[in-house]
Amino acid sequence: MATLTSRDKDYSKWYNELVVKAGLAENSGVRGCMVIKPYGYAIWELMRDELDRLFKETGHVNAYFPLLVPKSLFEAEEKNAEGFAKECAVVTHYRLTNDPDNIGKLIVDPEAKLEEELVVRPTSEAIIWNTYKNWIQSYRDLPILINQWANVVRWEMRTRFFLRTAEFLWQEGHTAHATKNEAIEEAEKMLDVYADFAERFMAMPVIKGLKSPSERFAGADETYCIEAMMQDGKALQAGTSHFLGQNFAQAFDVKFTTKEGTQEYAWATSWGTSTRLMGALIMTHSDDKGLVLPPTLAPIQVIIVPIARKEEHLINLLPSLEKLEKLCKENKIRVKSDLDLENSPGWKFAEHELKGVPIRIAFGPKDLEKNQIEVARRDTGEKMYFYLENAVEQIENLLTDIQETLYNRAKNFRESNIHTADTYQEFKEILETKGGFIAAHWDGSEEEELQIKEETKATIRCIPLDAKEERGISLLSGKESSRRVIFAKAY
Amino acid sequence: MATLTSRDKDYSKWYNELVVKAGLAENSGVRGCMVIKPYGYAIWELMRDELDRLFKETGHVNAYFPLLVPKSLFEAEEKNAEGFAKECAVVTHYRLTNDPDNIGKLIVDPEAKLEEELVVRPTSEAIIWNTYKNWIQSYRDLPILINQWANVVRWEMRTRFFLRTAEFLWQEGHTAHATKNEAIEEAEKMLDVYADFAERFMAMPVIKGLKSPSERFAGADETYCIEAMMQDGKALQAGTSHFLGQNFAQAFDVKFTTKEGTQEYAWATSWGTSTRLMGALIMTHSDDKGLVLPPTLAPIQVIIVPIARKEEHLINLLPSLEKLEKLCKENKIRVKSDLDLENSPGWKFAEHELKGVPIRIAFGPKDLEKNQIEVARRDTGEKMYFYLENAVEQIENLLTDIQETLYNRAKNFRESNIHTADTYQEFKEILETKGGFIAAHWDGSEEEELQIKEETKATIRCIPLDAKEERGISLLSGKESSRRVIFAKAY
Repeated sequence: MATLTSRDKDYSKWYNELVVKAGLAENSGVRGCMVIKPYGYAIWELMRDELDRLFKETGHVNAYFPLLVPKSLFEAEEKNAEGFAKECAVVTHYRLTNDPDNIGKLIVDPEAKLEEELVVRPTSEAIIWNTYKNWIQSYRDLPILINQWANVVRWEMRTRFFLRTAEFLWQEGHTAHATKNEAIEEAEKMLDVYADFAERFMAMPVIKGLKSPSERFAGADETYCIEAMMQDGKALQAGTSHFLGQNFAQAFDVKFTTKEGTQEYAWATSWGTSTRLMGALIMTHSDDKGLVLPPTLAPIQVIIVPIARKEEHLINLLPSLEKLEKLCKENKIRVKSDLDLENSPGWKFAEHELKGVPIRIAFGPKDLEKNQIEVARRDTGEKMYFYLENAVEQIENLLTDIQETLYNRAKNFRESNIHTADTYQEFKEILETKGGFIAAHWDGSEEEELQIKEETKATIRCIPLDAKEERGISLLSGKESSRRVIFAKAY
Repeated sequence: MATLTSRDKDYSKWYNELVVKAGLAENSGVRGCMVIKPYGYAIWELMRDELDRLFKETGHVNAYFPLLVPKSLFEAEEKNAEGFAKECAVVTHYRLTNDPDNIGKLIVDPEAKLEEELVVRPTSEAIIWNTYKNWIQSYRDLPILINQWANVVRWEMRTRFFLRTAEFLWQEGHTAHATKNEAIEEAEKMLDVYADFAERFMAMPVIKGLKSPSERFAGADETYCIEAMMQDGKALQAGTSHFLGQNFAQAFDVKFTTKEGTQEYAWATSWGTSTRLMGALIMTHSDDKGLVLPPTLAPIQVIIVPIARKEEHLINLLPSLEKLEKLCKENKIRVKSDLDLENSPGWKFAEHELKGVPIRIAFGPKDLEKNQIEVARRDTGEKMYFYLENAVEQIENLLTDIQETLYNRAKNFRESNIHTADTYQEFKEILETKGGFIAAHWDGSEEEELQIKEETKATIRCIPLDAKEERGISLLSGKESSRRVIFAKAY
């Protein structure tokens, strides 16, 4: 097992190597698309199930809408269409036929051209609001609280495992409401759900905020986001929730009769998270030995490695191991024993470290004598011994402790990498020497935002929802500002 | 709530009305594609979770492969490519741009033509075996036991809710093995998993069999299937499992080093079920009042309807209702109370019948006095009274009984609609007068199969795995045959 490039040496290279070597994903034969491998997919399944549970707890149901969207529907909401037009995969034909010049090969059948082209959904507002039109007549039909788990395609020129791929997996919530306030409350509620998921399950602290107008989702009146800090100080947008106003209702003519008998357009939200979260998870916790997973999202939480290289040695250890494994399972701990005799315990240790298993248990003849197990935690590398008789309880406590330790470590890292800058000079110096997030004053204009972006590559990540009132002078224009916003270079 | 067309009058119309009125699915703005509505999707989720559990229990893991397949990969396995070429949606461009002649409209950007067209997967053997090539070097890398939950597109000219749609949701297992026998065992094992799922969860009896060569999956050496009988006597293929031989390994050059050090091509299987199962479920159990769901797949297993039209009457009933609901939930019964005061109890009864809720509980002032609930079962319409004190236990037993009753009813129906025919004349008469399945002798030739199909529209559904040895004379050619095969008209 070759070692990884260290993070200090080349963070980007470390990330790519880690994704491949830990068996999370690999490039496919399709440009910009990856294969999500079983181990990576198992982590995604845990995320998905947890998010799905949180959505259902907050009153949402799942449904499924078509992958292919007729161009005329797609272009109905103009801002949304304009925002995504540049990255749309388009289906133009519905048949292949034999190549007359090349036996055994196929060509697109020119006779099978579609009358209207179909866009592979980059997002589903258009097809969904075209459907909601038939579902919404009266205030009694509202709210509609629907989520969809789906694949989407956005043709990206520069792609990166999980963070930016031409096809990705995601969920997209699409809700319709009778009042503006209710829609805004929904958008904020789902932002809270995302933040709660990020912090409690991914052990990843996030800043909740609003996007600046230029960074809003195409077709939204307001975009809320959660922003996380990666280990290299760069920001990663981990989820967005949009208040869409009446834009889609107007584009698709979705009106309803109010309690008072008037006609009004419905109010909308949409909100999404994607397999991008996998990238965020990796870059929040992992180290030079490989992946580090928070226990809540680890497909294997505890790996048991017998210290034995021969069948006859293994046999002595088995009864205790099997009992421990069984007890763990009864307590809903995701445990696995690595009994393979081909590889050495040392090789296995490295392998399970690479895969980020939170707790490794080693159990050899000496441990058997002492009725103990050797326990190593992946997050700190610390080793300890537990007596077999109360091992499960201690393992449970340790899993909780690892989850908390990871969160606190990430939070401390972030806190010590949020800087304030009061002048543009200071801003640029911090960006070059320290990186991280910079809290600074902004005059609210697109001009200033754009110039800073062009000159420094830092963008406004968000206007934090909990930003304190603070009078200040904006970085470039010198205009007055009443609160700081968060700037950073971003993924 | 308008009533449904009766099954006797027009089975096909009844089916379409039921799908829409019960809130399972509806047509979308995209030709041949449907919207799976929340109630339909909730049933699909239960199916999916159960199948997923069965796959994992049999050692399979999930992964995800790209939606879009480059034409050169797609055409590599020629038989497979030929089989699906006629129904492929093809992406030819990756960008839309503003229509210069029509402000606010978009056109496909002629500058953004792909060098190589991408096929929207109709099935994933090609992209997956192109990936396995890099995963398989040695016998130690085998078996690979992977499943994928995904959407696929097959351009169908005549579509029907769930049964045949241009896009559908499915799972596709793709496994690789070191030996032919192991691959055949896998294909048969997964057929058993499908049959087990159909019978235990869908309460739908199935016949396990082999397809005739002409009905095999394109690229398979052998196709196993489960065939179910719908209420109109027609057959529905509910799942298939394919032994793919070394066809894909040869097409994608997937060789491995055997234990003995030789090089061999890997052996393959694939197996799939889809949202088509929703159609099978509907057409196995439902009646003129609407959907009938087996309890295992019912999103709501028990609906509680208070007999009260005013708040002050409802209030008296609530403590008992809430207690009952809580007890049911503690026992993992999917229960819901319908407390809405806008609709009458009678309206609610009809609504929940339409939606196929297995058990309806009515609870009014007189029931409160007597400490009882009125219980109606959806499958038989039978009514009974349970005392509140042991209601949950009796509800559990009733759910089990409904599940069994549905299975037995469907099985009896099927048994009484399997006929044997010994002459072609008899065969045609049965087909015209009784329908159902016909067990008859076939000479094994494609000619005979085709002529029967053309003349009667009946196809060979399968050669049952448990067919008895029986000497006979084939229907048309008069050649000798050693066992009967199942003919039927099919969905």
